[in-house]
Amino acid sequence: MARRKIGIWIIGAKGGVAATVTVGLVALKKGLAPNHGLVTQLPQFAGLDLASFGDFTIGGHEIREVSLYDEVVQLVRVSKAIDAELVAKCKPDLDKIDKNIKPGTLWNVGNKIEQLATDDLRKLKAKETPRAAIDRVQADIQEFQTKNKLDQVVVVNLSSTEPPVDEATVPAKWKDLAKTLDKKTCPLAASSLYAIAALELGIPFVNFTPSLGSAPAAIQELAIERDTCHMGHDGKTGETLMKSVLAPMFAARNLPVMSWVGHNIFGNLDGKVLDDPENKKTKVRSKDRLLHQILGYSPQTLVSIEYIESLGDWKTAWDHIHFQGFLGLPMVLTFQWQGADSLLAAPLVIDLVRLTERAHRNGDRGLLTFLASFFKSPIGVPNHNFVEQFQMLQSWAEKVEAKK
Amino acid sequence: MARRKIGIWIIGAKGGVAATVTVGLVALKKGLAPNHGLVTQLPQFAGLDLASFGDFTIGGHEIREVSLYDEVVQLVRVSKAIDAELVAKCKPDLDKIDKNIKPGTLWNVGNKIEQLATDDLRKLKAKETPRAAIDRVQADIQEFQTKNKLDQVVVVNLSSTEPPVDEATVPAKWKDLAKTLDKKTCPLAASSLYAIAALELGIPFVNFTPSLGSAPAAIQELAIERDTCHMGHDGKTGETLMKSVLAPMFAARNLPVMSWVGHNIFGNLDGKVLDDPENKKTKVRSKDRLLHQILGYSPQTLVSIEYIESLGDWKTAWDHIHFQGFLGLPMVLTFQWQGADSLLAAPLVIDLVRLTERAHRNGDRGLLTFLASFFKSPIGVPNHNFVEQFQMLQSWAEKVEAKK
Amino acid sequence: MARRKIGIWIIGAKGGVAATVTVGLVALKKGLAPNHGLVTQLPQFAGLDLASFGDFTIGGHEIREVSLYDEVVQLVRVSKAIDAELVAKCKPDLDKIDKNIKPGTLWNVGNKIEQLATDDLRKLKAKETPRAAIDRVQADIQEFQTKNKLDQVVVVNLSSTEPPVDEATVPAKWKDLAKTLDKKTCPLAASSLYAIAALELGIPFVNFTPSLGSAPAAIQELAIERDTCHMGHDGKTGETLMKSVLAPMFAARNLPVMSWVGHNIFGNLDGKVLDDPENKKTKVRSKDRLLHQILGYSPQTLVSIEYIESLGDWKTAWDHIHFQGFLGLPMVLTFQWQGADSLLAAPLVIDLVRLTERAHRNGDRGLLTFLASFFKSPIGVPNHNFVEQFQMLQSWAEKVEAKK
Amino acid sequence: MARRKIGIWIIGAKGGVAATVTVGLVALKKGLAPNHGLVTQLPQFAGLDLASFGDFTIGGHEIREVSLYDEVVQLVRVSKAIDAELVAKCKPDLDKIDKNIKPGTLWNVGNKIEQLATDDLRKLKAKETPRAAIDRVQADIQEFQTKNKLDQVVVVNLSSTEPPVDEATVPAKWKDLAKTLDKKTCPLAASSLYAIAALELGIPFVNFTPSLGSAPAAIQELAIERDTCHMGHDGKTGETLMKSVLAPMFAARNLPVMSWVGHNIFGNLDGKVLDDPENKKTKVRSKDRLLHQILGYSPQTLVSIEYIESLGDWKTAWDHIHFQGFLGLPMVLTFQWQGADSLLAAPLVIDLVRLTERAHRNGDRGLLTFLASFFKSPIGVPNHNFVEQFQMLQSWAEKVEAKK
Repeated sequence: MARRKIGIWIIGAKGGVAATVTVGLVALKKGLAPNHGLVTQLPQFAGLDLASFGDFTIGGHEIREVSLYDEVVQLVRVSKAIDAELVAKCKPDLDKIDKNIKPGTLWNVGNKIEQLATDDLRKLKAKETPRAAIDRVQADIQEFQTKNKLDQVVVVNLSSTEPPVDEATVPAKWKDLAKTLDKKTCPLAASSLYAIAALELGIPFVNFTPSLGSAPAAIQELAIERDTCHMGHDGKTGETLMKSVLAPMFAARNLPVMSWVGHNIFGNLDGKVLDDPENKKTKVRSKDRLLHQILGYSPQTLVSIEYIESLGDWKTAWDHIHFQGFLGLPMVLTFQWQGADSLLAAPLVIDLVRLTERAHRNGDRGLLTFLASFFKSPIGVPNHNFVEQFQMLQSWAEKVEAKK
Repeated sequence: MARRKIGIWIIGAKGGVAATVTVGLVALKKGLAPNHGLVTQLPQFAGLDLASFGDFTIGGHEIREVSLYDEVVQLVRVSKAIDAELVAKCKPDLDKIDKNIKPGTLWNVGNKIEQLATDDLRKLKAKETPRAAIDRVQADIQEFQTKNKLDQVVVVNLSSTEPPVDEATVPAKWKDLAKTLDKKTCPLAASSLYAIAALELGIPFVNFTPSLGSAPAAIQELAIERDTCHMGHDGKTGETLMKSVLAPMFAARNLPVMSWVGHNIFGNLDGKVLDDPENKKTKVRSKDRLLHQILGYSPQTLVSIEYIESLGDWKTAWDHIHFQGFLGLPMVLTFQWQGADSLLAAPLVIDLVRLTERAHRNGDRGLLTFLASFFKSPIGVPNHNFVEQFQMLQSWAEKVEAKK
Repeated sequence: MARRKIGIWIIGAKGGVAATVTVGLVALKKGLAPNHGLVTQLPQFAGLDLASFGDFTIGGHEIREVSLYDEVVQLVRVSKAIDAELVAKCKPDLDKIDKNIKPGTLWNVGNKIEQLATDDLRKLKAKETPRAAIDRVQADIQEFQTKNKLDQVVVVNLSSTEPPVDEATVPAKWKDLAKTLDKKTCPLAASSLYAIAALELGIPFVNFTPSLGSAPAAIQELAIERDTCHMGHDGKTGETLMKSVLAPMFAARNLPVMSWVGHNIFGNLDGKVLDDPENKKTKVRSKDRLLHQILGYSPQTLVSIEYIESLGDWKTAWDHIHFQGFLGLPMVLTFQWQGADSLLAAPLVIDLVRLTERAHRNGDRGLLTFLASFFKSPIGVPNHNFVEQFQMLQSWAEKVEAKK
Repeated sequence: MARRKIGIWIIGAKGGVAATVTVGLVALKKGLAPNHGLVTQLPQFAGLDLASFGDFTIGGHEIREVSLYDEVVQLVRVSKAIDAELVAKCKPDLDKIDKNIKPGTLWNVGNKIEQLATDDLRKLKAKETPRAAIDRVQADIQEFQTKNKLDQVVVVNLSSTEPPVDEATVPAKWKDLAKTLDKKTCPLAASSLYAIAALELGIPFVNFTPSLGSAPAAIQELAIERDTCHMGHDGKTGETLMKSVLAPMFAARNLPVMSWVGHNIFGNLDGKVLDDPENKKTKVRSKDRLLHQILGYSPQTLVSIEYIESLGDWKTAWDHIHFQGFLGLPMVLTFQWQGADSLLAAPLVIDLVRLTERAHRNGDRGLLTFLASFFKSPIGVPNHNFVEQFQMLQSWAEKVEAKK
């Protein structure tokens, strides 16, 4: 049987995570890199008939005037996170992929992100309605699909975090929300426009960022209507992953957490954008909410995310957990997590694309809740216990495999 | 319905953990302390009809000439781990319980532990056969039961870690093992003699230490034969608990662990005994074996346990986990755990007694594998994933409750 | 020779540090506590003829309606930082000292602190001019001196951190500043009024807080004019002490510091007051400025101080120092400091009183720069290298001793 | 004035530190690397007229059959500590320097090191007397000097740590020690033979390792006799540097240290050699002795050094310092140091060569005690306070400069 060709259409296609996904996929195709960090390469998913690394073609949207190669070189030089020799071998492929990347939209992305964009995009933003932006995005995706003879496309949002959208202002029905798209008062931000663009075309959408994306009920309705699937949001890569693993331990041992302090420092573009208090709000909310769900009560919490330039892509988190033991005795657990943010995120993005494509092929529609373990705030899933979330993924895989 | 009276017969009844169990139960009975750290007080176990704190009477064996109160005062003064005012209120009860404590046996406990014992016990050791020691222990337990009009007794081993026993020398059948009990060449150590003493009487036995206890097949056979139950071994309180929670995360995320270093420092009596390389061997083995099972491969590991007098009961662990991310990039997680060892262990001991008594009442026989989450090396359970072990406990509870 | 009687007049006399100073001095007098943490008890200062613990009498100002004993009990119960038995033995002395404590002034202390004060004091603030407040304070001090037949008084400011004063608005000459004291527009805050009150009476003044105190040139002029001495500001107890010790290492080894991040969490009253951004500004400035001086350049720095209630007096600091090694390689030092804030500060306060009294007796006038090692921002001393600052103290002691 | 040509003769010339010194000097000459980590590049030493990077020629002894380039590639690939592009540019120079490196001697270096050596050297060891080995080494050095027309040579020992030598067996007079050199019973190990070889030729000798080197009184006598200078031992790069900076803080603040635990893990060749308990003894002794000197008493200490392969050159140290504050309250400081060992050591080696050559030119003879700040166990210097040691270096520089 001929292999199916799969397109990955990335929003924020030249950011650190996207660049790592891209160089990573090229390296995996060429057999230059190990499988580490890819959940879908675990033995329990071997029988799923997932797309191979060689089946993927990459394209996407970007708002800045940079080259994919330059972005990767940052990760080599500043962060010492990717091997110089590896990148040298992948450069021709990166330059080719660069040509698949089109200008995105700045709708409600906030000042901090707008400042990073090209002048052309800023001018376009003043003129274009959300609907027009969606149409343009759809045309780009369709051209990508046709030109590359792709059997399927999956859209993934990896762009910088937007300021929070007031969800109360978003109409609950798709037909009402659709009407706002022609107006300058449309409450959505870019991430949701991309979601609509994909889902209207019946293309699956994955939101790896804390931005709103496909979360509104009206957009979830659209996904069902167009017979496609989606999931989000906010990839769970480091400190929050730790929380979703450690908090169940404190809960199961009946050790009340009095306070949980988490300080995050890092120096990549994401960090710069989060340096803006507006954008940071969206993120902190996403990192914090799971403790209450897992513990069943709300300890005092503090989450800080600060931009420290020298760290580059190295996200360092220090967490201080103050808990009460037997007879009320206070005890302390602290941890220090030192991981390169983009290299923690990239394999999860590849996993999500493979699993979403497989789910779509399997006929899954609407929210893909079995992907909860990948997200800080999995839409529609109240359970934040990581091991139990992972069991959901394994169960799904068993069912799909049984069906084959 | 009249409450059932339950006896807890503790081996090592004046050690730090036993002293904390004792003062803790007195305080809980009097309503002087919160429920923190007690797994059995979680809502999901509320319907199990477990024994109440007021139902328990404590007795046991000890090899040193100390008083329970003095042991508790150590935890107050040196470790600042228990409140002075609380202890003052519990003193009369402690003094009373002190009288329930009888001299134990030194059979094969190693030099380090023998040095701590009374002269009388050392002399007795030279004369007594294992069988005679067992008979003596059984007489003590039966006297305790009769005198206190107890409906049920549970025996718990909390004594210091013995040097490893060569398991190959222990006969596989109970009838063969029973014969060795009359000989000076009997390969068992004290922990197994206590196990035999309890199980022969049909009394449940819980081994909270890394010593061999009831693990040999022949002793497991005895438990079935006498229609009773048991479980072990080595309470999972701190660093190993963390391992059983963190290692599944690395496994599920396909992040290969290259090395896992764990340094433990503490200054209580347990630490002093473990300072002897022979006794330490038993412990280190128990702390280390779970990584291979969870990860499916064997990273380089290092576990050190060192006696640092100034720390008293405060077990401080520093773990350094070196793992590989996407594209082979090395990343680091370190954690620092600062908990008072006896106060982490004590509530688990109370939990184990309550659950074991309930299981016995329920008719469970042989190994109580559903207790796996409480142990570093749960006998008969290959799964070391803490959350999955905890699910075993919850399932058992649901089944028992359904049966009521 | 008869011992001289020395009074310690504490501003903020019922705060955590003051309470610890008080209970500590009582315990030292009674021989109930070791000398730990007292610099003046080191052998190199043994020949200085410093005042003995028994020579001191304590009084002071406070703005809240609390008792000294209750404050100490907080440190016993919540923070487990002081021994319950010790406090029980000191209670009668504490109750007696309580009576020496008078209401202070709220002049420009900011909303956060005002909210803690008694209604009477808030009303008084509306009526009283700074001059009137100073007069009242002076009367209180003089009454204390007379009543207790004291040979000498030293005033120490231990009150909560005030919002920053714009130093540009403070007249540079004492005669000009003195005129503003009759006006509601007087730019000074309470800490400077206390300084003026003391110095006008020829009484030495020590400012242990980051507030302005005696720092303005005009007040320094007053000290010289009244033939007395003073020093400040901001006691160097934990994280900043570490900085003044570690930064010289990076400087001497030519290892450029790229970024220095310091996160501080704690839960005492000081922490609550610093939770107000206005008051925090004064503190952060003081913690941060020394790096530039020691290193000779300005790395990116971040200092956070957050109120985490469960920690009580336990100030926990996590510092992350990112530095460049040979060939530009980035390396990392992190440290974690866990100390009880009041118990780190209290012995330094006693040291400062003993040394200031001795300096005054020696005829030292104006700024006591030899005390630099005790302060985060030593007035008039540009050198922040801790060891070199300590050498200044030792040299002074040698000179004073030689003179005897 | 024509520049003087200086030779650096390195013992252990292809080890990690030596390879970093070599690639570093090549890079500095070519202007490819910053000055970071070089103490001698600080402004206070600018007027000393030190040798320039371009003045140095490198040669030395090695016992293994490896190439300098391959050793550097390890640091690039495994440890990601040196830049691949930088090494590519330096390769021709490294290959040239490789030819200056001659086989060393295995006299009393212990089994662990012997196993790393070439067969030829092992055979030679069986035949050669210490005297013959010294003669051979001297011939090598002299050939190097002549061939490269060097004005001065400095010998530096960077070889792996030898097992401890029983110093009591080493004669105190040079004339007695000299006699043992002809015998198989000569108590010295290789490091001392190299020292004798250099000093007999009037060439300065620096011992950067914990091995004995030039420490024996008889060898110190030889240095004076031949009118030359020397210093050692054991470069102070990481954890011990931290101790010599932090311990003075605890001493000056009268905060008694109860225990100081230091765990070191790393995975380079040095680590492998130290994995042998014999060799480790020498090292641990050197890391531990300074605490007593600085503090004036001996807290419980623990120093572990363990070989963790995955870490490569990254030495990670975790130190736990348990100290007593006011009223006897226990407090905790922990730190985590993550530095590449070879890159911390290499610039200090270059500093020592520059300063030793300058001291020799200045007429300094015997022990160069002003270099104390560079060493864990500075011969002849009881003061381990880092800042005070650094002041010794600055004073020397001022005197030398004044003399010019």
